[in-house]
Amino acid sequence: MATKLNTRDAKTRKRLVELADAVAAAAERGRDPHVDIPARTLSNVRYNKTKRFIEMGRNTNRRQLFNLSQAKTFMQTMLVAQGVSELIAEQKTLSIRGLFYRLKHDVKGTKEPTFEDQAECDPVIEDVEVLLNSLREELHVFADLRGGMVGNLVLVDSGDEIDCSRLGSGGYAMPSIVEPEVIQFRKCDAEFVLHVEKGTVWQRFNEDKFWRKNNCILTHGGGQPPRGVRRMLYRLHNELKLPVYCLLDNDPWGYYIYSVIKQGSINLAFESQRMAIPDARFLGIRSIDFERCGLSDSVKIALSDTDRKRAKQIAGYPWFAHKAAWQKEIKRLLDNGFKLEVEALISRDISYVTEQYTPERLKAKDWLD
Amino acid sequence: MATKLNTRDAKTRKRLVELADAVAAAAERGRDPHVDIPARTLSNVRYNKTKRFIEMGRNTNRRQLFNLSQAKTFMQTMLVAQGVSELIAEQKTLSIRGLFYRLKHDVKGTKEPTFEDQAECDPVIEDVEVLLNSLREELHVFADLRGGMVGNLVLVDSGDEIDCSRLGSGGYAMPSIVEPEVIQFRKCDAEFVLHVEKGTVWQRFNEDKFWRKNNCILTHGGGQPPRGVRRMLYRLHNELKLPVYCLLDNDPWGYYIYSVIKQGSINLAFESQRMAIPDARFLGIRSIDFERCGLSDSVKIALSDTDRKRAKQIAGYPWFAHKAAWQKEIKRLLDNGFKLEVEALISRDISYVTEQYTPERLKAKDWLD
Repeated sequence: MATKLNTRDAKTRKRLVELADAVAAAAERGRDPHVDIPARTLSNVRYNKTKRFIEMGRNTNRRQLFNLSQAKTFMQTMLVAQGVSELIAEQKTLSIRGLFYRLKHDVKGTKEPTFEDQAECDPVIEDVEVLLNSLREELHVFADLRGGMVGNLVLVDSGDEIDCSRLGSGGYAMPSIVEPEVIQFRKCDAEFVLHVEKGTVWQRFNEDKFWRKNNCILTHGGGQPPRGVRRMLYRLHNELKLPVYCLLDNDPWGYYIYSVIKQGSINLAFESQRMAIPDARFLGIRSIDFERCGLSDSVKIALSDTDRKRAKQIAGYPWFAHKAAWQKEIKRLLDNGFKLEVEALISRDISYVTEQYTPERLKAKDWLD
Repeated sequence: MATKLNTRDAKTRKRLVELADAVAAAAERGRDPHVDIPARTLSNVRYNKTKRFIEMGRNTNRRQLFNLSQAKTFMQTMLVAQGVSELIAEQKTLSIRGLFYRLKHDVKGTKEPTFEDQAECDPVIEDVEVLLNSLREELHVFADLRGGMVGNLVLVDSGDEIDCSRLGSGGYAMPSIVEPEVIQFRKCDAEFVLHVEKGTVWQRFNEDKFWRKNNCILTHGGGQPPRGVRRMLYRLHNELKLPVYCLLDNDPWGYYIYSVIKQGSINLAFESQRMAIPDARFLGIRSIDFERCGLSDSVKIALSDTDRKRAKQIAGYPWFAHKAAWQKEIKRLLDNGFKLEVEALISRDISYVTEQYTPERLKAKDWLD
């Protein structure tokens, strides 16, 4: 290991070495090697009212080598840890798909593959994340490339200084890994972040130079924002002290996206502490907007049974359950019987959403928390 | 109309006015107003061996106002033309979703909506494209935002100068509309374009600084490249005279992506003349690569029945049918009985694809045409 590691990599590496040492020590003492992995189950997830995000409980599952039903997963866990260790040593990153291919082979002397398919590998990667208490990005593993950003922000990405106010119509493609070792903020004049759901809406805001007129940073996540986007929003919020406003569709999916940005994801609760933004605000589209904005019947999209079910589930989330405004919002959606996309505002005028709707809501501090 | 239009918009607007004049003139003369729309059917598509791309034939469908079965579509065609005309006048762009919302309303005095849903609007947008012989982008309408670029190229996007060699790990997010009025090339030192299928693979190449070491431009299309990416590749190829090499998965989907980049899309044949790149080259992954690269059985993915069927269809495309190398390539895929993703090469080594596979193929001029 000639490479000099940065602090974060050195820390992750230390945890990997401790993991390996514990297994080796058990083997040397003639004990059954095992690892205790925090349980990633719904029953081990709770909403922390003080921290205001979802976090994992303390339940763990023991995974033993000398247990017929656990031996394979134990081996897979060690394989992923080894793979990650190599990535850090080589100072390279891989997609979860790439890591899968790198680790997939037949176990020596057998026709038994280490991993059957990607679906068998992904949960083990998550296991190693929680086991090491490291974000996937710290393990040098990334998922999807999606989302974009533009606005009054100068950042440094891998040594390149990038002025996000000078990126034309395309903007800055959000990388999968936006950790401080890769990306540093150099200068920020923006006063807030506006996060919109879709790239098409983002283009409308960018074309109308909303971020310039309103001095903000404009981001989108290409639908449900991938981890890189959430982590970027988190860093913008916490390091640069920028409020984050979300403009999403008026449907259960939009509510859910907001919920994940705000409180974290239920499936991956362990990342909440470095992803969730409890102070994120929901600007719209609101259920009252059909009436308030004077929209016509033609923009209504009928709620499906699944929509109704999801809306009720979301209304029951602990972080929404005690908020009268949210209960009212969701009830109104159900009473309306229809949903509204952000694009529906275009029926008023092409730039209604950028020149009236959003500035007016911001000025009136008219949002849901 | 106070706004001064650029040449392209003036041209499109002229066509729109001619269309409107023809309809008005017919009405004034007491004739049945109609439009003749080039038929967008498979039977009206042919492979032009000289131009080496797919083009539309001369068949048209007449759409009349005073015909019960055509009146609605006639009205929709006029609506879309009017919407596009307004976009040009206001110098704004809209997503196809946005245009749909803008045009959707109940016909005056009825409960009949102009468009039932997006699926009813999209083909009419395509009709207007072929009717006016204008690319969708020239109509100020865009679709998806996907794909990215990095490399030895300086461009100007909406007045902002962007050095694509200084964009860190994220890169330049490819806009939906990359027409010369929006994007101009200022300086290009790159000698070729490497287009890869997926963002995850693109990240591997970017991290390994492939484009710097090999002096090229690196693009990806997030799977099947959207129109903006195809149009950008076309412009890089034709204006900057850069060869385009494609690195795609070894499966029928990869072949199809190559086919669309090279000869155009069968569904949207009218855009081929400004999208297709007949000289684009297929670098890999090839069916011989499993053996040639010494890959292990674990990376094989069995072909499905659909894969086999699609592979045979593609082998029958006129532009592949007479090429012995392509017939051999596809036959070998079928004989193999498995497909290979680009990521499979990672099983050899993390950077095998960027440091050996691709440079070696380029040096040996080892590609399919």
